[in-house]
Amino acid sequence: MPVYLDHAATTPMLPAAIDAYAEAMRLVGNPASIHTPGQQAKRMLEESRERIAASLGCDPVEVLLTSGGTEAVNLAIKGLFWARREHGRRILVPEGEHHATMDTVEWLAASEGAILEWIPLDGRGRIRLDALEAALAAHDDIALLTLLWANNEVGTIQPVEGAAALAAAHGVPVHADAVAAYGQLPLRFHGSGLAAMSVSAHKIGGPVGIGALVLARDASVVPLLHGGGQQRRMRSGTQDAAAAVAFAVAADLAADPDVDDLLELRHRLVRGVSRVVPEATFRGDVIDRLPGNAHFTFPGTQGDSMLFLLDMAGIAISTGSACQAGVSETSHVLLAMGLPEEEARGAVRVTLGATTTEADVQAFLDALPGAFAQAVKAGFSERAVR
Amino acid sequence: MPVYLDHAATTPMLPAAIDAYAEAMRLVGNPASIHTPGQQAKRMLEESRERIAASLGCDPVEVLLTSGGTEAVNLAIKGLFWARREHGRRILVPEGEHHATMDTVEWLAASEGAILEWIPLDGRGRIRLDALEAALAAHDDIALLTLLWANNEVGTIQPVEGAAALAAAHGVPVHADAVAAYGQLPLRFHGSGLAAMSVSAHKIGGPVGIGALVLARDASVVPLLHGGGQQRRMRSGTQDAAAAVAFAVAADLAADPDVDDLLELRHRLVRGVSRVVPEATFRGDVIDRLPGNAHFTFPGTQGDSMLFLLDMAGIAISTGSACQAGVSETSHVLLAMGLPEEEARGAVRVTLGATTTEADVQAFLDALPGAFAQAVKAGFSERAVR
Repeated sequence: MPVYLDHAATTPMLPAAIDAYAEAMRLVGNPASIHTPGQQAKRMLEESRERIAASLGCDPVEVLLTSGGTEAVNLAIKGLFWARREHGRRILVPEGEHHATMDTVEWLAASEGAILEWIPLDGRGRIRLDALEAALAAHDDIALLTLLWANNEVGTIQPVEGAAALAAAHGVPVHADAVAAYGQLPLRFHGSGLAAMSVSAHKIGGPVGIGALVLARDASVVPLLHGGGQQRRMRSGTQDAAAAVAFAVAADLAADPDVDDLLELRHRLVRGVSRVVPEATFRGDVIDRLPGNAHFTFPGTQGDSMLFLLDMAGIAISTGSACQAGVSETSHVLLAMGLPEEEARGAVRVTLGATTTEADVQAFLDALPGAFAQAVKAGFSERAVR
Repeated sequence: MPVYLDHAATTPMLPAAIDAYAEAMRLVGNPASIHTPGQQAKRMLEESRERIAASLGCDPVEVLLTSGGTEAVNLAIKGLFWARREHGRRILVPEGEHHATMDTVEWLAASEGAILEWIPLDGRGRIRLDALEAALAAHDDIALLTLLWANNEVGTIQPVEGAAALAAAHGVPVHADAVAAYGQLPLRFHGSGLAAMSVSAHKIGGPVGIGALVLARDASVVPLLHGGGQQRRMRSGTQDAAAAVAFAVAADLAADPDVDDLLELRHRLVRGVSRVVPEATFRGDVIDRLPGNAHFTFPGTQGDSMLFLLDMAGIAISTGSACQAGVSETSHVLLAMGLPEEEARGAVRVTLGATTTEADVQAFLDALPGAFAQAVKAGFSERAVR
């Protein structure tokens, strides 16, 4: 097995979650059925929803289970936009958001009449609260504000509660995409001032294919999926009780994440990189960042070359968001942080997780100088050809 | 364990599918990642997609994996409607469709400018092709036709290819909701004349939480879920490779379903009902129906009373669609078939599956006369009270 340092793309499932899932799959019953097997499935589902809610600091009724983070984000943004269409069509959205948000708001602008108001980031990837405040004051047709709880590429934690307080003063509902933050930071929906919050199970050791939109009791969204009327009539479709059980196992651990070891490993990795490749620049906020996230640019390289060379050396890392990794494009997050395109191209994201060991970090540090030297060489010849 | 005769709501997962799922969940890797673990996950996903495609008579690239039947139906109907909005806003839809369709088209009519053209059913629950032909001839602003491949309540198989041929003569794309038909009938997308077809894994012994929209190569839909651009950019979101593996195991069996035993058991059940409760009326088409489906009305009863009384006797059946079973309302399918409300109220759906035995059928027949007598009594007293 290669050394896996791409936990932000997806992290290994907890063995206890796999076992609980496999056991739950042996039961039969649709939670929407009113006979005994159906009610047993429903009980299993609702007990799981309680544990998931506890990990998110919200009430069980506020947890709408979805097929994952992308669906949760789409439901929050489109659903709030459609629900408030009469009130206004303006969406406040920071630069450097995940593509689930970017592509959703761009579709709403192109096809559903939304007006987008982009909020800039500072050089550490943090949303500019002064610009947000100005935008809130300047417009009275704002449907919603959506923002990342923490940036999925550079790991910078956003001032979510500050942003929510500013928005509240103008009566604007706020959605936070907490997919990257869940399991790395304690999330407490109640008291956050948010109307909605998205999370995904496979980022915390649960299964792929299930996530949640936390939606405040007094908030409502127009559904994306119409049908049987499950989940407050806002998310129809047969509910996946077995996946919820596995999600709940991972949620128990994510409720109050113990990140001391993770932080220690990351410090070791960041110190190591500055020692073995001093040319590298550490990106994002040094303090306010996800504990498992380390992000660098390596001057004179292409992130893709680094990825391939490290992969050949048995190390799995990423250049940015996995969801866009199939396509070679410069990170819009780094560009929004003000980096020149040339520098932004050499981006490498190294993300650690619960299974990461000192040996993994050492293997990365051992392979890095060679990969860097080769990537620089490849960069030179590429530029020479042009 | 109770006798489970509600396989149309959900059917037990195949042990081989559970084992394959549990094994696949032990691997880590996001199929969108380009490093080795990501590419391994991608290979696992694409091999599964090939097997799913083979079971549906289509090409792998035509299989868009979704979170289940409800999402597939919503994506097909909303996606085709939005994609053809410039062409026309009329949707042809038979009466008696599943709520995933009914609620979707009603939302499109209420919020997105759709015009609905309802196609009537005959007394057996079959779409009236003459009425469809007239509707196709009468309008030149038709965005799509959507219809069930087989009715999920009464089991009647629809003349899908006939309907598709009529629609093709007018250049109208057709979506079939084949969720209830999959695993009961051989489905061959190529040659069916359809533009799109929806299926769900948990109806064929695969897991809940995954399904597919088959979308012809030359068709396109506006996405419901925007984001990373997975699956022809029409369904973003991290793809669930492990669930796809489990789906593929069930799909292998669904490709060419062996239903002789199922038919024999159903014949035994239907003959038995007519013997032990001669007052019952067998509903739907006698010949063109799903092999696992038996549907009856019991005069003078409420379906809900029958359900509760049989449940107390250890038998799990349904009054109709599980997705609506939480809500006590008279079946819109039976009303569309022309039954008076009084008769339609006494509906009972008994659905058999791969695990059903002769003993299950006998247990149902043994419990039925007592449940019927009590339900009639309850019906009398209810009417007396009114």
